[in-house]
Amino acid sequence: MSNTAQIGVTGLAVMGRNLARNFARNGYTVALHNRTAARTHALVEQFGDEGDFIAAESAENFVAALERPRRLVIMVKAGDPTDAVIKEFAPLLEEGDMIIDGGNAHFADTRRREKELREQGIHFVGTGISGGEEGALNGPSIMPGGSKESYASLGPMLEKISAKAKDGAPCVTHVGPDGAGHFVKMAHNGIEYADMQLIGEAYQLLRDVAGYSPTQIADIFRTWNEGRLDSYLIDITAEVLSHVDAATGKPFVDVVLDQAEQKGTGRWTVQIALDLGVPVSGIAEAVFARSVSGHADLRESSRHLAGPTARTLGKDEAAAFADRVEQALYASKIVSYTQGFHEIAAGSEEYGWNVDLGKVAAIWRGGCIIRAAFLDRITGAYEAQPQLPSLLADKDFADEIAAAQDDWRDVVAAAVTQGVPTPGFAAALAYYDSLRAERLPAALTQGQRDYFGAHTYHRTDREGTFHTLWGGDKTEIES
Amino acid sequence: MSNTAQIGVTGLAVMGRNLARNFARNGYTVALHNRTAARTHALVEQFGDEGDFIAAESAENFVAALERPRRLVIMVKAGDPTDAVIKEFAPLLEEGDMIIDGGNAHFADTRRREKELREQGIHFVGTGISGGEEGALNGPSIMPGGSKESYASLGPMLEKISAKAKDGAPCVTHVGPDGAGHFVKMAHNGIEYADMQLIGEAYQLLRDVAGYSPTQIADIFRTWNEGRLDSYLIDITAEVLSHVDAATGKPFVDVVLDQAEQKGTGRWTVQIALDLGVPVSGIAEAVFARSVSGHADLRESSRHLAGPTARTLGKDEAAAFADRVEQALYASKIVSYTQGFHEIAAGSEEYGWNVDLGKVAAIWRGGCIIRAAFLDRITGAYEAQPQLPSLLADKDFADEIAAAQDDWRDVVAAAVTQGVPTPGFAAALAYYDSLRAERLPAALTQGQRDYFGAHTYHRTDREGTFHTLWGGDKTEIES
Repeated sequence: MSNTAQIGVTGLAVMGRNLARNFARNGYTVALHNRTAARTHALVEQFGDEGDFIAAESAENFVAALERPRRLVIMVKAGDPTDAVIKEFAPLLEEGDMIIDGGNAHFADTRRREKELREQGIHFVGTGISGGEEGALNGPSIMPGGSKESYASLGPMLEKISAKAKDGAPCVTHVGPDGAGHFVKMAHNGIEYADMQLIGEAYQLLRDVAGYSPTQIADIFRTWNEGRLDSYLIDITAEVLSHVDAATGKPFVDVVLDQAEQKGTGRWTVQIALDLGVPVSGIAEAVFARSVSGHADLRESSRHLAGPTARTLGKDEAAAFADRVEQALYASKIVSYTQGFHEIAAGSEEYGWNVDLGKVAAIWRGGCIIRAAFLDRITGAYEAQPQLPSLLADKDFADEIAAAQDDWRDVVAAAVTQGVPTPGFAAALAYYDSLRAERLPAALTQGQRDYFGAHTYHRTDREGTFHTLWGGDKTEIES
Repeated sequence: MSNTAQIGVTGLAVMGRNLARNFARNGYTVALHNRTAARTHALVEQFGDEGDFIAAESAENFVAALERPRRLVIMVKAGDPTDAVIKEFAPLLEEGDMIIDGGNAHFADTRRREKELREQGIHFVGTGISGGEEGALNGPSIMPGGSKESYASLGPMLEKISAKAKDGAPCVTHVGPDGAGHFVKMAHNGIEYADMQLIGEAYQLLRDVAGYSPTQIADIFRTWNEGRLDSYLIDITAEVLSHVDAATGKPFVDVVLDQAEQKGTGRWTVQIALDLGVPVSGIAEAVFARSVSGHADLRESSRHLAGPTARTLGKDEAAAFADRVEQALYASKIVSYTQGFHEIAAGSEEYGWNVDLGKVAAIWRGGCIIRAAFLDRITGAYEAQPQLPSLLADKDFADEIAAAQDDWRDVVAAAVTQGVPTPGFAAALAYYDSLRAERLPAALTQGQRDYFGAHTYHRTDREGTFHTLWGGDKTEIES
């Protein structure tokens, strides 16, 4: 049994198990290992007829089962468990072998691990995998980082097990060296947070302002799903909204506690963006919105606060309003993708990854949570102009926003006037208006900073760094 | 000359120099030290007649000049230089001595240093100092962390050199143990970012929508400064706006490049808030607004984007609009302080600091950049109700917002409709509306998460954790 497995998976919780099965179903011999061997044997027992598995109880046997160079996938909890597994296996490996981390690691940890293992001649391939349990089994979107050599060996296998876009292209590419894969997976999740928040705001507006029921809103989302918003998230939104709770007969969405939870990648996306100086206000508002919703005590103490009551519209008005909400949702979505891709570009620049943004959009077209027709458009924009400074600089997106912006403004104004919270829509619109502004109040900010802290400022009309003697005769000195 | 200085300052750049002079002017004998002795001698030469200084060239002589227990203030750049100075001096100190770090350290670094030095019997007092050069000399707001024992020894001196509020109270208190002082200083700066951004948005609205000139707007700010917005920042805003550039004869604010800079504490405030699960959307938008303004390339590529032109109002309409902007500014300000104090409360809870929020507001009343009449109100709110869950839960603030909210909504709707970016006003209003909302779309978010990731949800009508079999017959199971 030695040396015959093309790939090994250690960590056989549901994600690892499904990934292993995916490899086996695609004709690869898969070595299996788990801290507790019972799980390994259970997998073989239950799914052994799906392909060729080699169950290994010890780390040594597991490694011995792999053909050289070895490809060892670790599917354990991000953080200390990942380091523990690396520490266990690295001494058993040889130069040229690969460790593939398919967990949701922070890209900075991946950079550290890649560097340490590189010094031992081992390729460490931090790999984003999106699509949840179902994706892991039937085809996820895969975002591997690490060395080019590792991708040459690993890429064909990943292409085989990955999701395929509608045009048949596999949803995997070599994102870039070291932590690039996990960075891009993080940005994917940040964008996912924003997408979900924007959908939530659209729902609330259709409910509170237009006066539609969840079932009616589900129908509206189904209609939207046939247009430019066609996407997995819009699709499942309709599913969730049309679901009726069996126990109460009420709409399911009305019996779910409205306190959203989160796992960390959205938060990371915002924190890293702050380090990189990238404004990701739409993603930040999505993360904050979940956090606000979870502060039950704060909400309880605030329920009495004054506010208007949303007016409910008549039938024709409501239908027209729903059309405007679609425009607002689409325009806000363009902005949050603009921000997310800006962050990827900035990370790529900072760490020298040379990430192909168009390809990133392309591999998100299948398998992952944010898969959408829309991504083809992003790929197209970057293919037409690889140095595109921002998605908003793409003529087609700019034209669509131009057509949407009156409705977008109307919807946000209605929300604000009627007291329906739309932090995501509003942040996206403010970002848009900030970018196109001829002048920003940042000039006043610089004046204030120079006044209280002698922080200096630049002028619009000549080069140099200046300070005004605010406490004295207010002459300007060059510094 | 040995053993006679009550305090020593090492690091004699402008902040350290002014702080040393402040101690000396208040009757303390001050030992001086700097990496390059020239600066030490220059200080004595130039300001020696202000008090009793002892210049020391070597670290040993500097330490020897201090009375026991020693109080050694380090005023060097935050980060590695701080660690280097600690490494130099700690071995020369004895049990019970104090090292006071007056730089802008990250509170996590302060926690680490405090712990390491505590093991050596040395008190490490991370201390926020606000007020810039002028405050350091004439009275800053001082936020010391560290042990109670250190404050017993150091407090009376800090009280002497600190700013005094209008009621004569010194603007210093023992904020809490280890990193509490630097944490609170960080939150202060985050709130300062938000204050400045909100003022900037008010200015832009008065300029673009009301059609006022910078001089007219300066007058409006002067009027506001006589009311509830009375504060240092409003005051200097009027100064900056009324200033005319000598070289061009144009308003100063029009010749300053509108790209705002930042140093890091605003960013930290948002990053730490994300770790603590505290929504600080107003502070985040302020940080992002500076970052947007600085992306010259992105703005250049976005200037062509479609938008409305702001309508300019007639004279009476403009005056009425200005009044509404004051309401919007004030309401938004309440929200950003609510968020900032929430973060301090959360940090205090997380690290067991037992920070007195009312006292924090009280020591910000003088010396620091955000000093304002408004802070008395916050102190009052926390004195009346120490366990106040949020500033918005205070009846007086709630009443003021209730009175302001129609105007607030009008102003944000006008900004949105007319294309003037007001990310801060809009984020504050969305936070307010989110908190008071009976139901949030977070229920839909939880439904989506359960659909694509089996993340489970809670119900409104009974305890437990539930999952719906979305891919199957959609029955609900308890998990």
